[in-house]
Amino acid sequence: MTKGNINVSVENIFPLIKKFLYSDHEIFLRELISNATDATLKLKHLTNIGDAKVEYGNPQIEVKIDKEGKKLHIIDQGLGMTANEVEKYINQVAFSGAEEFLDKYKDSAKDSGIIGHFGLGFYSAFMVAEKVEIITKSYKDEPAAHWTCDGSPEFTLVEADKKDRGTEIILHITDDDKEFLEEARIRELLLKYNKFMPVAIKFGTKEINDPDFTPKTTKDKDGKETTEPHKQITVDNIINNPNPAWTKQPTDLKDEDYSGFYRELYPMQFEEPLFNIHLNVDYPFNLTGILYFPKMTNDLNIQKDKIQLYQNQVFVTDNVEGIVPEFLTMLRGVIDSPDIPLNVSRSYLQADGAVKKISSYITRKVADKLKSLFNNNREDFEAKWNDIKIVIEYGMLSEEKFFEKADAFALYPTVDGKYYTYEELYNKIKAKQTDKDDKLVILYTSNKDEQHSYIEAAKAKGYEVLLLDSPIVSHLMQKLETTKEKISFARVDADHIDKIIQKDENKISKLDEDQTKALDELLKAVIPSEKFTIQLEPMDSDAAPFMITQPEFMRRMKEMQATGGGGMNMFGNMPEMYNLVVNTNSELVGEILGTKTKKKQERLINQSLDLARLSQGLLKGEELTNFIKRSYDMIK
Amino acid sequence: MTKGNINVSVENIFPLIKKFLYSDHEIFLRELISNATDATLKLKHLTNIGDAKVEYGNPQIEVKIDKEGKKLHIIDQGLGMTANEVEKYINQVAFSGAEEFLDKYKDSAKDSGIIGHFGLGFYSAFMVAEKVEIITKSYKDEPAAHWTCDGSPEFTLVEADKKDRGTEIILHITDDDKEFLEEARIRELLLKYNKFMPVAIKFGTKEINDPDFTPKTTKDKDGKETTEPHKQITVDNIINNPNPAWTKQPTDLKDEDYSGFYRELYPMQFEEPLFNIHLNVDYPFNLTGILYFPKMTNDLNIQKDKIQLYQNQVFVTDNVEGIVPEFLTMLRGVIDSPDIPLNVSRSYLQADGAVKKISSYITRKVADKLKSLFNNNREDFEAKWNDIKIVIEYGMLSEEKFFEKADAFALYPTVDGKYYTYEELYNKIKAKQTDKDDKLVILYTSNKDEQHSYIEAAKAKGYEVLLLDSPIVSHLMQKLETTKEKISFARVDADHIDKIIQKDENKISKLDEDQTKALDELLKAVIPSEKFTIQLEPMDSDAAPFMITQPEFMRRMKEMQATGGGGMNMFGNMPEMYNLVVNTNSELVGEILGTKTKKKQERLINQSLDLARLSQGLLKGEELTNFIKRSYDMIK
Repeated sequence: MTKGNINVSVENIFPLIKKFLYSDHEIFLRELISNATDATLKLKHLTNIGDAKVEYGNPQIEVKIDKEGKKLHIIDQGLGMTANEVEKYINQVAFSGAEEFLDKYKDSAKDSGIIGHFGLGFYSAFMVAEKVEIITKSYKDEPAAHWTCDGSPEFTLVEADKKDRGTEIILHITDDDKEFLEEARIRELLLKYNKFMPVAIKFGTKEINDPDFTPKTTKDKDGKETTEPHKQITVDNIINNPNPAWTKQPTDLKDEDYSGFYRELYPMQFEEPLFNIHLNVDYPFNLTGILYFPKMTNDLNIQKDKIQLYQNQVFVTDNVEGIVPEFLTMLRGVIDSPDIPLNVSRSYLQADGAVKKISSYITRKVADKLKSLFNNNREDFEAKWNDIKIVIEYGMLSEEKFFEKADAFALYPTVDGKYYTYEELYNKIKAKQTDKDDKLVILYTSNKDEQHSYIEAAKAKGYEVLLLDSPIVSHLMQKLETTKEKISFARVDADHIDKIIQKDENKISKLDEDQTKALDELLKAVIPSEKFTIQLEPMDSDAAPFMITQPEFMRRMKEMQATGGGGMNMFGNMPEMYNLVVNTNSELVGEILGTKTKKKQERLINQSLDLARLSQGLLKGEELTNFIKRSYDMIK
Repeated sequence: MTKGNINVSVENIFPLIKKFLYSDHEIFLRELISNATDATLKLKHLTNIGDAKVEYGNPQIEVKIDKEGKKLHIIDQGLGMTANEVEKYINQVAFSGAEEFLDKYKDSAKDSGIIGHFGLGFYSAFMVAEKVEIITKSYKDEPAAHWTCDGSPEFTLVEADKKDRGTEIILHITDDDKEFLEEARIRELLLKYNKFMPVAIKFGTKEINDPDFTPKTTKDKDGKETTEPHKQITVDNIINNPNPAWTKQPTDLKDEDYSGFYRELYPMQFEEPLFNIHLNVDYPFNLTGILYFPKMTNDLNIQKDKIQLYQNQVFVTDNVEGIVPEFLTMLRGVIDSPDIPLNVSRSYLQADGAVKKISSYITRKVADKLKSLFNNNREDFEAKWNDIKIVIEYGMLSEEKFFEKADAFALYPTVDGKYYTYEELYNKIKAKQTDKDDKLVILYTSNKDEQHSYIEAAKAKGYEVLLLDSPIVSHLMQKLETTKEKISFARVDADHIDKIIQKDENKISKLDEDQTKALDELLKAVIPSEKFTIQLEPMDSDAAPFMITQPEFMRRMKEMQATGGGGMNMFGNMPEMYNLVVNTNSELVGEILGTKTKKKQERLINQSLDLARLSQGLLKGEELTNFIKRSYDMIK
């Protein structure tokens, strides 16, 4: 039997690190700046607890491009390394300095915001550099060290004459990666990954007006005023905001701070967000962040992936799938949590207990915020409802907990601009809109214009008509019908209004049995049965003589399938089904029956059918053109 | 000065491999089956060239779950390893056996389809296993070896009594990963990654009817026939198809082979593809594959990411962004190329020379195929046009090369169901539809129903009207207008037809100057100027008396912006602009002027305006309801 140690062969692992460590080469800059930030924050911690007897000062990280020399420099003023530490931390690949540091200073370091636990991060430099140098001077009183490695496992280590504390990394960029010698590219990366990192990052300089200089204004002999030009001075160009809003306490922030931070996050976004939610929790996990509700459109697909995920102020990704519940991915803002496992699969993420807790914490906070907005300023909440309803409805459909909480603030708007909660709506309509089987019928329209005449008919009965026009509302109605008791939703054109809400009263028809039969035969002879099912109804005499309706069930099933009902496409391919309701008590029907010539009868029926189709948006193309021509002739 | 070797510390790299090697744990199975496939194909190669004096036979790979023992077995019948080789290939992490093999047998091995160049692949087993065993017997006459490692760097290696050639990997699955002991999960993974791998993969058994058994039918005394039950036998359940269609020569495949393979790829897809393109190229890169044109809808967003990318029959991803030109990501099918660099960023991919060549090869092949389909069976191509036009139009907009080639097969359908190429269209209409400034005006409609009366007016003049209804066609018109000379597109309702195509003829108005002025004043008093710009035109007396038009430029700009015109949203927020064209030669206008009472004049104008709005789809809601009520009254 042989026993032994597995041998990791350096010759082979180097190219592999280069190739596989990160799928994206640009990550090297994030890693090196994370290391520089760590080194700075570690020094801060050590000076705070008195273990380092040096002045912490106001350190910054500098990124410098030397285009001619094909070099990129990253310079920090952090704790630096002695030659021994270089041996220990750099020459031993995968020996994470940050972990050891955190172990040693466990309790006191907890809040110091130290990032690194990647260990291999430094070696990502070799993804873009053919040679890497480290020149470093420790805060301890020891000579500086200069380490050089060309990507082979061999390195050299010599003394250096660097005087200032800190570490300079010099990357000799390969020809393949020369994009990283472009100022615009580096600026883009710094803004992408390091925009909110906690140590100031200098990248070049910029000219500003000297704040200590006040331009003099002089008058010439004609009394004309001349102001001397402003004095310009050159200052460091600090590319990041080390203290972004989400790291502060909500009590320290005003409304304009939140909207200012929104503009920092989305400089190209001109619309103000509707409101924000400040997240802040320590236990059982650490999470801070600010979420914003933007104005939503009814398109579910295009507005995702606007939330940015950070870990200790380092940008990680803008794909928060699995971390934030699906329905909230339409929001914007930032979430910062060191407790979210990265580099794991999304399915693993969704199964992870900590992540589940984070997701349900966010859901709860959002629900609480919506409730308090509703309670504190209902008018304002109603005004914003149309812009946020899609998120809330989506949440009610996908998260049971949110569905329960939403009862307190989900609104049901009417065509007359009133907004009811479910309970208010129930109390308002239950007396009038309960049918003979004791079922409450909630009437709605999906389009005030298209269903106008049907809405009018319902309103004439004293009924309330909701305006429910979001693309997923048919799913929500289905859910409400199964959750609440004895209710059903019906669109105003699902039948004629006395049939939608059936009461215990017998309508009397003006027609006797023979006349009814004669009418039915007349109609069937003219109207194509494959398009319309004829339904004779004794209605009020001033109700529309002809009316086209579309039964609720089939129509809603088709709608649900169109917006992702799941399962087989059973209903989607069914043809549209329409009924033609003919009011046997209308004057027009009397006229049809009273007319003697077949031709005139036919003309009356056809013109009436055309008008009914017009009312339901079904008269189109050639038929519409002919109808219009006929109508022009009739005016003349 | 110190010189030395960087030391890769095993203790630390193991957990890192576990954590970072692949972002997705499930990948371990793909890696281990790739290794097993390699081992099998290497043996095949060695027997082929005579270096291994053994029977290759009909080897398979078996995957077995031992749920109680919490173990997963992957067993191959490939070339196996001697104890020495285990030491060399397994104990030296990142020492890729496949690379060495390919180096050694460079030329002869080129076509053997050997996959592995990952090296670290085997170690991915430790992402899901707390202990891994290898029991292996080489094809060489040496004892079998049994290697065990519990994820620490320590391993043991002893002799084993395995008799059959090949390697068995045993994973002791951790509690966190016990999903990989579920049959359904493993089946899912095998179907995802290994469905078309070149060596048969056995996963369990299944019952089938014994093909050697013919059931006997006997007659009883009443003459009733009874057939004895079919005999069932248990056979290996082979989960993959080792010889998928794309690996074969196009000449060896029939139409039904292509549609059969489509069903293999998309078992849940019931619709047949319209046609396919077999890709097959050796130089300057290696690529095979089959692309299918499915029926496209007009929604650009939802139909992407259906093309699967393979490398040597191993599934890699279904995100082919950057490899396949954007407009072809709406197609379906497979691409298999070992030459596409993986694990690099998408932006790197797009800049890569080899990938660019692949992308333009695919574009060219698609264009050639479309051209030959058009030439060989134009009728069929026309019938399919509506289902494929979105891809072709998108390609014409995004790839200049494709735009040029598409001139030969891009079709312009008319409302009468004719299909012209650009050249045919040009020759057909140039005589009639060239205006007085020598500009050819191409008329189109976006909706036959909605613009019916305008289409009729154009057809009455003998003009051809195209039906252009895809969501991006406004961009294509813009491009054609700048590419072709002296042409412009105009929708049929852009103006009244004599203004859209202006000829050198003076229409004579029936009205004199005073009458015209009186009419203008009358109209302006009734018609709101913020909604309609009034335009008096002497048209044919039987043309529509009132007509609403919408100028081409603004409408098209708004449409282009709505479908991603790029740049600022300049036009999107502009209100819709309409003109009311009044035919001064119409009878109705005479009547309006001839009517004495203001009230009757107003009624005539309003009813005519309503009819014009109806024709343009602008009469809605309450106004439509009122119009219908008025019209019912008029019938009676």
